[in-house]
Amino acid sequence: MRNIKLTISYDGTSYRGWQIQKNGRTVQEEIEQAIMKAFGKGHRVHGASRTDAGVHAKAQVAHFKTPLAIPAGKMPMALNMVLPEDIAVTHAEEVPPDFHSRFDARSKRYRYRILNSRHRDPFSEKYSWRIPYKLDVPLMKKEAAFLEGRHDFKSFQARDKRERTSERRIFRIDIGKRKAFLTIDIEADGFLYNMVRNIVGTMIDIGRGYLPPGSMRKILKNRDRTTAGPTAPAKGLFLLEVKY
Amino acid sequence: MRNIKLTISYDGTSYRGWQIQKNGRTVQEEIEQAIMKAFGKGHRVHGASRTDAGVHAKAQVAHFKTPLAIPAGKMPMALNMVLPEDIAVTHAEEVPPDFHSRFDARSKRYRYRILNSRHRDPFSEKYSWRIPYKLDVPLMKKEAAFLEGRHDFKSFQARDKRERTSERRIFRIDIGKRKAFLTIDIEADGFLYNMVRNIVGTMIDIGRGYLPPGSMRKILKNRDRTTAGPTAPAKGLFLLEVKY
Repeated sequence: MRNIKLTISYDGTSYRGWQIQKNGRTVQEEIEQAIMKAFGKGHRVHGASRTDAGVHAKAQVAHFKTPLAIPAGKMPMALNMVLPEDIAVTHAEEVPPDFHSRFDARSKRYRYRILNSRHRDPFSEKYSWRIPYKLDVPLMKKEAAFLEGRHDFKSFQARDKRERTSERRIFRIDIGKRKAFLTIDIEADGFLYNMVRNIVGTMIDIGRGYLPPGSMRKILKNRDRTTAGPTAPAKGLFLLEVKY
Repeated sequence: MRNIKLTISYDGTSYRGWQIQKNGRTVQEEIEQAIMKAFGKGHRVHGASRTDAGVHAKAQVAHFKTPLAIPAGKMPMALNMVLPEDIAVTHAEEVPPDFHSRFDARSKRYRYRILNSRHRDPFSEKYSWRIPYKLDVPLMKKEAAFLEGRHDFKSFQARDKRERTSERRIFRIDIGKRKAFLTIDIEADGFLYNMVRNIVGTMIDIGRGYLPPGSMRKILKNRDRTTAGPTAPAKGLFLLEVKY
């Protein structure tokens, strides 16, 4: 059996997220169906990240095992022919048999996009969270820096989800500004459920002056979801990269 | 009566263009309905450019006359509350009573976006024309330069449309490149029907080597639509700016 690694880009607007579920279209299902249609064989496809409903991906990574002899380099074109327009396979390569897209990931990088404007931008409605208030970006950068490193991120974990440990390592947080857009890039060795969106919601509360300077450090120490800010909407979130 | 100038941004994907017609939604109709809903009065709105079905606008300009006393600065917010998400009024101001959005325009600037890639980009499907062939961009720039200045652009006019004259002045054509995207910006004192899309289709035919160097000058001189390239799809076209 060969092991194939796919890089996949998708606009998550019309999907119930990555992972197959009973109701609604998912990206995983579309990829598996495309493999069936293009190659005539059904295979289970494993994704690196279970992106939520409405979350986008510039470069999700997935893998599947197959006895097919078709060269990996020919797969993107063949799959894109049968995939819907809002999903594209951008790269495919053969990897060692023990490669696993999720378990082998060393880090993932997510981007959250904020449109800081009084007025709506029709082209960004589905790809950003619009904040009409003035934001103190230097303060946001300073506060975000407290999150870098290894910490217990329980304050930023969705309350209804529990994992073995809520400790994760954030390698870096970068805040960029281009015209009215603010981008918050977070790279970590792993993410708790809703972690990026909860961090962003808290950063916005700080940036607009709703929470005082020093809040991020306190909230992190509290290990209590109720003291952090709101969950930012899914539509502003992009899976940018998975590193191995 | 006060005269109000609006600046409007829209994603043209779901519209039959700017101008009201019997079948299908149009941007003009949505704006007129929004004025009715927000201010309780019906007014005819005149746009600077009759963008086609699927064509987008970053800054369309329109005007309407009204006896309403509401300050212009408050209009965008009020209109955006009732407009669909893919249309936004970004600015409103009171202008002299004789201002006319279309007749007073000195120039208009359009952008055409090309994605030069073998693979689809899910986020750009509705906002660009994907060209999978290698393009000779320096040659495209050189050929495009022949179009600058005052010329008879009959070769680039849709065959079923006739205007008094097919002479127009192109002030400048700029070709930019950023990653896999190519942008072709054309500013002119006016445009014939499909003129930008026909110029772009011809430029692509030259860039991919389907038409030889020197073709642009010849085609321009021919004054014959059949010798130029195909009409580029509407989805890659943006009205960027109207100057007065």
